[in-house]
Amino acid sequence: MARVVRGTPRTDLAIVDGLAQLGSATVHEAQGRIGLLHHRLRPIFADKIAGNALTCEVAPGDNWSIHVAVEQAQPGDILVVTPTSACDDGYLGDLLAESLMAHGVRGLIIDAGVRDVSTLTEMGFPVWSKVISSQGTVKETPGNVQVPIMIANQHVRPGDVIVADVDGVCVVRREDAAKVLEAAQAREAMETEKRARLASGELGLDIYKMREKLAAKGLVYEDYQG
Amino acid sequence: MARVVRGTPRTDLAIVDGLAQLGSATVHEAQGRIGLLHHRLRPIFADKIAGNALTCEVAPGDNWSIHVAVEQAQPGDILVVTPTSACDDGYLGDLLAESLMAHGVRGLIIDAGVRDVSTLTEMGFPVWSKVISSQGTVKETPGNVQVPIMIANQHVRPGDVIVADVDGVCVVRREDAAKVLEAAQAREAMETEKRARLASGELGLDIYKMREKLAAKGLVYEDYQG
Amino acid sequence: MARVVRGTPRTDLAIVDGLAQLGSATVHEAQGRIGLLHHRLRPIFADKIAGNALTCEVAPGDNWSIHVAVEQAQPGDILVVTPTSACDDGYLGDLLAESLMAHGVRGLIIDAGVRDVSTLTEMGFPVWSKVISSQGTVKETPGNVQVPIMIANQHVRPGDVIVADVDGVCVVRREDAAKVLEAAQAREAMETEKRARLASGELGLDIYKMREKLAAKGLVYEDYQG
Amino acid sequence: MARVVRGTPRTDLAIVDGLAQLGSATVHEAQGRIGLLHHRLRPIFADKIAGNALTCEVAPGDNWSIHVAVEQAQPGDILVVTPTSACDDGYLGDLLAESLMAHGVRGLIIDAGVRDVSTLTEMGFPVWSKVISSQGTVKETPGNVQVPIMIANQHVRPGDVIVADVDGVCVVRREDAAKVLEAAQAREAMETEKRARLASGELGLDIYKMREKLAAKGLVYEDYQG
Amino acid sequence: MARVVRGTPRTDLAIVDGLAQLGSATVHEAQGRIGLLHHRLRPIFADKIAGNALTCEVAPGDNWSIHVAVEQAQPGDILVVTPTSACDDGYLGDLLAESLMAHGVRGLIIDAGVRDVSTLTEMGFPVWSKVISSQGTVKETPGNVQVPIMIANQHVRPGDVIVADVDGVCVVRREDAAKVLEAAQAREAMETEKRARLASGELGLDIYKMREKLAAKGLVYEDYQG
Amino acid sequence: MARVVRGTPRTDLAIVDGLAQLGSATVHEAQGRIGLLHHRLRPIFADKIAGNALTCEVAPGDNWSIHVAVEQAQPGDILVVTPTSACDDGYLGDLLAESLMAHGVRGLIIDAGVRDVSTLTEMGFPVWSKVISSQGTVKETPGNVQVPIMIANQHVRPGDVIVADVDGVCVVRREDAAKVLEAAQAREAMETEKRARLASGELGLDIYKMREKLAAKGLVYEDYQG
Repeated sequence: MARVVRGTPRTDLAIVDGLAQLGSATVHEAQGRIGLLHHRLRPIFADKIAGNALTCEVAPGDNWSIHVAVEQAQPGDILVVTPTSACDDGYLGDLLAESLMAHGVRGLIIDAGVRDVSTLTEMGFPVWSKVISSQGTVKETPGNVQVPIMIANQHVRPGDVIVADVDGVCVVRREDAAKVLEAAQAREAMETEKRARLASGELGLDIYKMREKLAAKGLVYEDYQG
Repeated sequence: MARVVRGTPRTDLAIVDGLAQLGSATVHEAQGRIGLLHHRLRPIFADKIAGNALTCEVAPGDNWSIHVAVEQAQPGDILVVTPTSACDDGYLGDLLAESLMAHGVRGLIIDAGVRDVSTLTEMGFPVWSKVISSQGTVKETPGNVQVPIMIANQHVRPGDVIVADVDGVCVVRREDAAKVLEAAQAREAMETEKRARLASGELGLDIYKMREKLAAKGLVYEDYQG
Repeated sequence: MARVVRGTPRTDLAIVDGLAQLGSATVHEAQGRIGLLHHRLRPIFADKIAGNALTCEVAPGDNWSIHVAVEQAQPGDILVVTPTSACDDGYLGDLLAESLMAHGVRGLIIDAGVRDVSTLTEMGFPVWSKVISSQGTVKETPGNVQVPIMIANQHVRPGDVIVADVDGVCVVRREDAAKVLEAAQAREAMETEKRARLASGELGLDIYKMREKLAAKGLVYEDYQG
Repeated sequence: MARVVRGTPRTDLAIVDGLAQLGSATVHEAQGRIGLLHHRLRPIFADKIAGNALTCEVAPGDNWSIHVAVEQAQPGDILVVTPTSACDDGYLGDLLAESLMAHGVRGLIIDAGVRDVSTLTEMGFPVWSKVISSQGTVKETPGNVQVPIMIANQHVRPGDVIVADVDGVCVVRREDAAKVLEAAQAREAMETEKRARLASGELGLDIYKMREKLAAKGLVYEDYQG
Repeated sequence: MARVVRGTPRTDLAIVDGLAQLGSATVHEAQGRIGLLHHRLRPIFADKIAGNALTCEVAPGDNWSIHVAVEQAQPGDILVVTPTSACDDGYLGDLLAESLMAHGVRGLIIDAGVRDVSTLTEMGFPVWSKVISSQGTVKETPGNVQVPIMIANQHVRPGDVIVADVDGVCVVRREDAAKVLEAAQAREAMETEKRARLASGELGLDIYKMREKLAAKGLVYEDYQG
Repeated sequence: MARVVRGTPRTDLAIVDGLAQLGSATVHEAQGRIGLLHHRLRPIFADKIAGNALTCEVAPGDNWSIHVAVEQAQPGDILVVTPTSACDDGYLGDLLAESLMAHGVRGLIIDAGVRDVSTLTEMGFPVWSKVISSQGTVKETPGNVQVPIMIANQHVRPGDVIVADVDGVCVVRREDAAKVLEAAQAREAMETEKRARLASGELGLDIYKMREKLAAKGLVYEDYQG
């Protein structure tokens, strides 16, 4: 038995688009270093996006549910696909990508394989995947769509915000999204100021007043003896 | 003892070139999902080629047989190199690539390492390898050339067709090549038509008439309860 | 307890810059195939550099010592960072890179993760790392700076020369640097001559007079029997 | 900032002990194939246990929170430890195991390393870990204790039931534990009956009436042609 | 579409049993170092067996064909299972093992996972697998039985001989089995004699007359200089 | 060119045997957490030994130098073998083990493969290796014997002390061996006392007076809210 849940909540796209500007590293920091998917997920081309998670569980070697998921898509979604056991097959190619784009989906996060990556690149459909593989899949076992899933060691619910760029993929809980956006913007402002000071040659040791703490932890300086 | 087999058959280059147009994913599908080499083989730059397999077994850390293989090359070949036990060394650099290009070889598939990849990229000599490594090799143990080999979990015979692109590497048996080309072209035509319908927003669920089958397998739709 | 060693020797930048021209594969060969770091270290963008090793040991998940290392930097250095146990966190982002560039550091070699790679790419700050990850680090445990370290199965001392390009990363002992430069230049000259002969179609079998040795090792030629 | 949550609920030990009898594979099946931790977690010796999850997040290379967790232990607990980023260090040895046993803890599940395994084996303290490593850890950064954690691709809350044996580790949500126990016992009874029929030589094809379904899916029988 | 081939040839059990005595390393050497399956296949307990390959292809996460294969089993067979794309699921547990034993099958070689390993160990049913995992499989897609397969980088045909022990798994082509047995027995006799000489303290350098060859390859002896 | 260095120093066996009693984890701690070889090296059976390093570099897939090394062996040595590039072949089997035992060698540490492990276990010859593999090796390229080597991310010199047990493998520099033995014995005495207190139920939090430091680092206690 498999389920499709309709009417799941989504995060306001104004917030989502704000998070897209900030990127996965800043967002991850701003929410207290939680929500980062495993770094084995890598982009097929450099891009920086955010969207509402449209979740999809698939059987190993079976992409049937992705067709089911397309019907549930709304503009601003990112499809998030996890196999119920580890699989490296190429679950999605240019046809499904075309279909997803036609329904406003902004990209794909998949803890498995993808194929047709040169066409996907031409189409500008961004994908973060574990591998690239021509190996196709069957359509025998339906999986759950728009239910909470486990992917790459994180828990993702429909409508949570996915933030993805070349550094990786981070999930933000939809109830936290507004405050995480605020914290991330504050962090970025602070970093801009710090970056200017560092670029001028000022040392982090001085800016962050680390010298005393380092000494207290036992750091000593000595001269080279050859 | 090691052998070089001369006069092995090759596949007609008209067929080979037809397969090159279609790419590894379509060809793999068209021949019934067989012949795909392990996805650990990745290209050093994006390219899309096909050629007759020029096979070469090498001892771990020993590239002597590649020199032997060059002499057996014919225009339209792709050199396919497998170590007799797993090895990550850089078996080939710009010199051997120059030699292979001079004899009409279109590229290299190697379940090991390669080096000088910036020069290879400038030269336009495409390589699919397991790793990139500066580690060189010795010339102490000759291996077999133009015999059937195992590479990346596939069986490849001299003159079988290798189809390689950014999605991966697929082998087509030479006696099947003509009919696989036909099947792959038919598949591509069908996909073009399907892709247009999907781009217009039509659902795969409807195009492929999946709804009844999904229901029979137990797929149910429900509303979000919060 | 952790140490910072001041006044460690460096290699003359004229020699360092000569080695940068030659690249990791040629330098590795020229010094007798020693000093190659494990090929898991990959560049975030294609570049070809050399520099004096500025060494830094870090605790897993802790980048405090990188701040300490910046103060010890001199123009022409490459920061070389190794965790005391394996770690995939993103130890460095755009801020620390800005700081390193401001002090003349040419790049980073790290047997761990890095983040902000799109900004690092825009800045032109080259990095060779094990992974890319948004996962941040803490500042609780100082590590050693400018002491001999183990990284990616090699021993690197402050002021040894690091040569890095798209093929990998190689270390040259500072006392050997001058003679390795000479040997590498000689090797490159020899390769240029060989490459021209190979490009003209001449066989390595003939250039290197391999046929007799291959026969002595048991290589036989036979005709295809179908 | 890190938190210790006191007074978290636990599952009745009568239910827990019932689940221990059934093992990870049967329990995993009985609850619909959810909750299985990644198979990289392996036992240091063969054992079959269940217990209430006592959860503990640790910084990479830092085992301070395990000391904090001991104080929260109750008889029948299993300590479940996850690093906030991947780490292979040996977080626990015979001393901490002695302390855990003294407080009634039945075993350890850790997505990292363990050491002193010959002593742990003599003591009869079972551990499922990712690796075995002598590498020690520091005590600089406290982590959360008795909060919901992510471990080896599963979500585990304090007081959820951990079922571990030589086949792997499975988590059962505490609110589902009673009904999962019932379902698992029913499954085991059914398997015992089936196993007897299979041992007598009866075929699964007949017991499960698979022949017609296989034919409908296209399975054909043919004779060997040489 | 999937096929079951009936009436495939088998190797004489007298030969098979002779090979079982010799083990995978000796057999692998005796046939010229071919036929070794990847060392990722490890035994669940120490055993030393040989048998006729009963081959079975399975879809990822789908063990339906194992039921089909049981009906084709004959005493002296070893079931050899390969997934069509990589999969770590536990394809077989105690029930199927019971069924296989009832039909005379001597063991299982599987390039995937297995479960119920404590029961399999008690039953004395030996398994060589890639992993141990409680993760179950479905029965949706039939695969081929008794056709030539690729497994762990080797080609195995029905009735080829599988030789498995704690060192690994080797396949011997059925037409070569008799002569490989003879060669392996000769090798073992020779090794027994050599082993006695080595046990008495005689050096391999002298027994195999290596000193001159080593010198010719450039081996030099020098005294320690401190 | 390859070298054998004669007359290298060794560590006094009284010290070596003292270190053997203490094991890799305690020794590693006692010398300041340095010298641990990568945990991928695992024992073929449980044992606890120490010995003087007899070092040996081998080409990938080539075990010739092990024969050379046997002649340099002295009672109390442990053979330490590293390939010049990564290799999984089975470099050593029962014959070479017999030869090594005849010359007083106590065991083998190899960052590659080993075979005949059931015989080695019967003989009581302990091995720590990366893998177990039947794959044999050739004798074409001599390597260095009794020179400093890199193995599994550590630097090992002839006569350094190797301490190996089921937790892993650690190297102690010969000039540090006496003082490391003393420190390790002191550490073990201290641990015995601590272990008794922990076994009585006393908390590490109290024994090590951690509560205040934890609070200073921000650890807070709260009650479960459901």
